[in-house]
Amino acid sequence: MAHIKLLNEELPGIVGLLNYRPETARPLLDLAETLLRGPSSLTSGEREIIAASVSYRNDCHFCHTSHAAAAAAHLGTGLGLIDDIKVGLPNTPVSDKLRALLVVAHHVQKGGKNVTEDDISIARKQGATDQEIHDTVLIAAAFCMYNRYVDGLGTWAPGPNEAYTEMGERMAKVGYGKG
Amino acid sequence: MAHIKLLNEELPGIVGLLNYRPETARPLLDLAETLLRGPSSLTSGEREIIAASVSYRNDCHFCHTSHAAAAAAHLGTGLGLIDDIKVGLPNTPVSDKLRALLVVAHHVQKGGKNVTEDDISIARKQGATDQEIHDTVLIAAAFCMYNRYVDGLGTWAPGPNEAYTEMGERMAKVGYGKG
Repeated sequence: MAHIKLLNEELPGIVGLLNYRPETARPLLDLAETLLRGPSSLTSGEREIIAASVSYRNDCHFCHTSHAAAAAAHLGTGLGLIDDIKVGLPNTPVSDKLRALLVVAHHVQKGGKNVTEDDISIARKQGATDQEIHDTVLIAAAFCMYNRYVDGLGTWAPGPNEAYTEMGERMAKVGYGKG
Repeated sequence: MAHIKLLNEELPGIVGLLNYRPETARPLLDLAETLLRGPSSLTSGEREIIAASVSYRNDCHFCHTSHAAAAAAHLGTGLGLIDDIKVGLPNTPVSDKLRALLVVAHHVQKGGKNVTEDDISIARKQGATDQEIHDTVLIAAAFCMYNRYVDGLGTWAPGPNEAYTEMGERMAKVGYGKG
């Protein structure tokens, strides 16, 4: 049970929190929509992988599994992607640019000052633009927020990967605007 | 120098980043305005102290000093508050409720799962409401994002506390809406 009395205790993860406090839900949803589905030279599938990978490293089961399911829906990979993200994507064909941006994102997860000049230089050599580096850092930073919000208030989350299929498809196709 | 080429390299901390990417600036500013200045039973001074204290623990000089200066402007304490936040507010008269909420915020900073039932129960005993607990968790989580955004992109920040006087006053009086 969540640490606070939600309006609808059946709603899992961030969904119950967005329903509890609509004033903060609006900018939180707008930020997710812009970062993950707004115009960008990174695909939404790539951006959802960054979000899911950071969430896994923050040990946030709800955010990791739901955003990995959204990535799977975008990329048509099937739900195996959820577990593949946990172990560094050995079985998913992703670009060297995305692998370099994931290093940046994982360093942001540990703390902003962990990002090195070398991280940035390697990402650039793989073709990352300034805006892609900017957006990767902000996606990683934003999920350090969403993950802490979800777990800091003790929300519940469905366990098995399969429970996230429909949620992931809705996140990929409908997005975050209609929260 | 920042890790990416900003449009105006003279703008410090998050200011240069908001100017670089207006699409993400809008929800980031809306969230700060709602969390720190929107309707709440916590004063803006109290909420800025939470923001500044979390930022200090994330080692983000720009966010810690600017939000502590904003708290000082709200509370009329003088800039001594900036250093007092670093050492746990021994010289600032704050309520026991705020002290209990700061414990919650500091646990969120370490990771959402660090918040315990005891933390929540102690905050409630000091009079904290569900919405105050919700907002404290989200302010702490949000500053884990802003701090990583500012430092993950290697932005510069003025050094001395005194350099933040005007910025803190503007944050307190004008707010985050007119970014």
